[in-house]
Amino acid sequence: MTSRPRPDAAAAGSGPVVISVDAMGGDRGPAAVIAGIANSAQKNPDIRFILHGDEAELRRLAAKRLYARHLDGRCTFVNATEIVTMEDKPSQVMRRGQGTSMWSALESVRNKEATVAVSCGNTGALMALSMVRLRKLPGVNRPAIAVLWPSRNPQKFNVMLDVGADIRAEAEDLLQYALMGASYARNGLALSRPRVGLLNVGTEEHKGRPELRSAHDLIEAAAGDTFDFVGFVEGGDIPGERCDVIVTDGFTGNVALKTGEGTASLIGDLLKEAFAYTPLSRIASLLALTSMRRLKKRIDPRRVNGGVFLGLNGTVVKSHGSADSTGVSAAVKLAFRLAQSGFSDRIAARVASAAEQTQDAVAAYESAHAAKDGTNP
Amino acid sequence: MTSRPRPDAAAAGSGPVVISVDAMGGDRGPAAVIAGIANSAQKNPDIRFILHGDEAELRRLAAKRLYARHLDGRCTFVNATEIVTMEDKPSQVMRRGQGTSMWSALESVRNKEATVAVSCGNTGALMALSMVRLRKLPGVNRPAIAVLWPSRNPQKFNVMLDVGADIRAEAEDLLQYALMGASYARNGLALSRPRVGLLNVGTEEHKGRPELRSAHDLIEAAAGDTFDFVGFVEGGDIPGERCDVIVTDGFTGNVALKTGEGTASLIGDLLKEAFAYTPLSRIASLLALTSMRRLKKRIDPRRVNGGVFLGLNGTVVKSHGSADSTGVSAAVKLAFRLAQSGFSDRIAARVASAAEQTQDAVAAYESAHAAKDGTNP
Repeated sequence: MTSRPRPDAAAAGSGPVVISVDAMGGDRGPAAVIAGIANSAQKNPDIRFILHGDEAELRRLAAKRLYARHLDGRCTFVNATEIVTMEDKPSQVMRRGQGTSMWSALESVRNKEATVAVSCGNTGALMALSMVRLRKLPGVNRPAIAVLWPSRNPQKFNVMLDVGADIRAEAEDLLQYALMGASYARNGLALSRPRVGLLNVGTEEHKGRPELRSAHDLIEAAAGDTFDFVGFVEGGDIPGERCDVIVTDGFTGNVALKTGEGTASLIGDLLKEAFAYTPLSRIASLLALTSMRRLKKRIDPRRVNGGVFLGLNGTVVKSHGSADSTGVSAAVKLAFRLAQSGFSDRIAARVASAAEQTQDAVAAYESAHAAKDGTNP
Repeated sequence: MTSRPRPDAAAAGSGPVVISVDAMGGDRGPAAVIAGIANSAQKNPDIRFILHGDEAELRRLAAKRLYARHLDGRCTFVNATEIVTMEDKPSQVMRRGQGTSMWSALESVRNKEATVAVSCGNTGALMALSMVRLRKLPGVNRPAIAVLWPSRNPQKFNVMLDVGADIRAEAEDLLQYALMGASYARNGLALSRPRVGLLNVGTEEHKGRPELRSAHDLIEAAAGDTFDFVGFVEGGDIPGERCDVIVTDGFTGNVALKTGEGTASLIGDLLKEAFAYTPLSRIASLLALTSMRRLKKRIDPRRVNGGVFLGLNGTVVKSHGSADSTGVSAAVKLAFRLAQSGFSDRIAARVASAAEQTQDAVAAYESAHAAKDGTNP
């Protein structure tokens, strides 16, 4: 690989922030990625990039007149000619992915050349590679992907996790998600005491799967100074105001995320149709233009596009595979904010104490249930 | 119980259609229910009601000047003074629910006085009571709740099931949901050959839980003359156009339903805010009024409010607990359409053949896998 910068070029938290970018993995190819980072570079003078992919192609795109004035002197290129496709199985990529732009992008975080990596590529492969190359934080069993979701809360977003890192989650994993999600809400949304809810089909305690009832008791026991636990919440609370962090398994979270996005997208298209329907409504659409743009910005899934992998040594921001330049730019913005706040180090510290809390909580839970005679745990 | 009409008063499919209504179980009490059925009665001269609940209260409400002109002579009252609350456990209601308006409403279907029952009450209790009093259709293992969901398809709605009858579903249950959902789409949405999709976290066949991979093969084998199988679909396809029927377990379906509703509701409120933001946008909102009303009608969850219990001897329409008069009226409209189309009889016939198909498909699936050496089924 050529042009890999030296580790000392990017000490976290001091001066410019370096973001490592997998420029090849998205559905729209490197052109959308370069357009997106140029957009970010224009808005933010403190940002630098390490771009991984077909070096000649990336240099050509970055040299375009529209982008060069923002990117000139702020990009390092690492040649990685292979691409992880959306069809590649994670296991294949783990075995034979060394030459890919995705692997290379993670390598820059592993080597401390950058503090955060961004990729639009295959989620399963990215998570599998991240687990192998960055490794799980001590005390974490299953890493999770957390997203920000437009909500009725004052901070305008809720955190939901896991949205697809792992389709399974035991009660202990759900407890870890609660602790990691609360930490993300404190750092990413500046909430001093986030309220955590556990996703279920009903808010009554007798409802739902057995592992959810156990997780309920574990999270309740772990709540305290750093977060509140509001108990079970329902799908309607994900965009709601009952809590700030929604905890669920990766299967359910992934379906909820995509259902919400699909519903928002359908409504947006129907709204456009409604405005085009009559001459009066076409005039109305002109008068309402700025208000509608504000609304669109508020709920546009591309603007809350970055999912964050939690529970690893280093931060990875996963953007939508279909992300356009706006989506890439949103993911880069999130990566910058997390890198600048020293989130990677903070969450490592948090999870280290969380691991103790988890063990304490599990022990407390088990001894409490051992004390009851004949009660099902 | 008083005033119970004779069974011969409501032969299905001939003349007026009789709907049995649990008037007490919703969050908004009987006033919202009476307002809703009065609305339905006004629009539809062929509809009759059997109203179950506090007879004195129901007679008083129905006699209000606003409602009496639509309801006069079209209601029968059955006194049932007890109410199933949202907090009651299904098991309690099954043992001690004889005096409740919910039990009574189902009894009218069991006795063939009505072909469809409508309730806004506790879903778990309503499903448990329906199972005990109406019994499952021969060949059905787990009944399901199906909802209509606004979509990009020409028929404007997709069918999703199960949305909460049972939080578990084995591969064979998912196959039955596919068959019942396809039947509902044929009868309720007039689609001659509905396209069925199986909800998963990715469309690649290797993704997802093991029971989903088995269900994929079972449904694929059962597809043929009466429906097509498009394979795995994702959350974004629920409001999409890739398929007409989305099959999933009741836990995932319930979360998806409530997430979609919550998202639509949040966007609606933000839209109102956006229109109120500037003088120009307030003028715009006046000009766009009829277009916005059309849009609202298209996506208002209250207007596709009725969930239908499939797989029982008789049809039960479950309305939202929080349904207002518009919601109750939508549920009654759906109940009327299903009653008039003879849906209960049709689906019984369909499921009888489906049961055979299920057995054939399972047998074919098992023999196919037994034939492979060492392959995991």
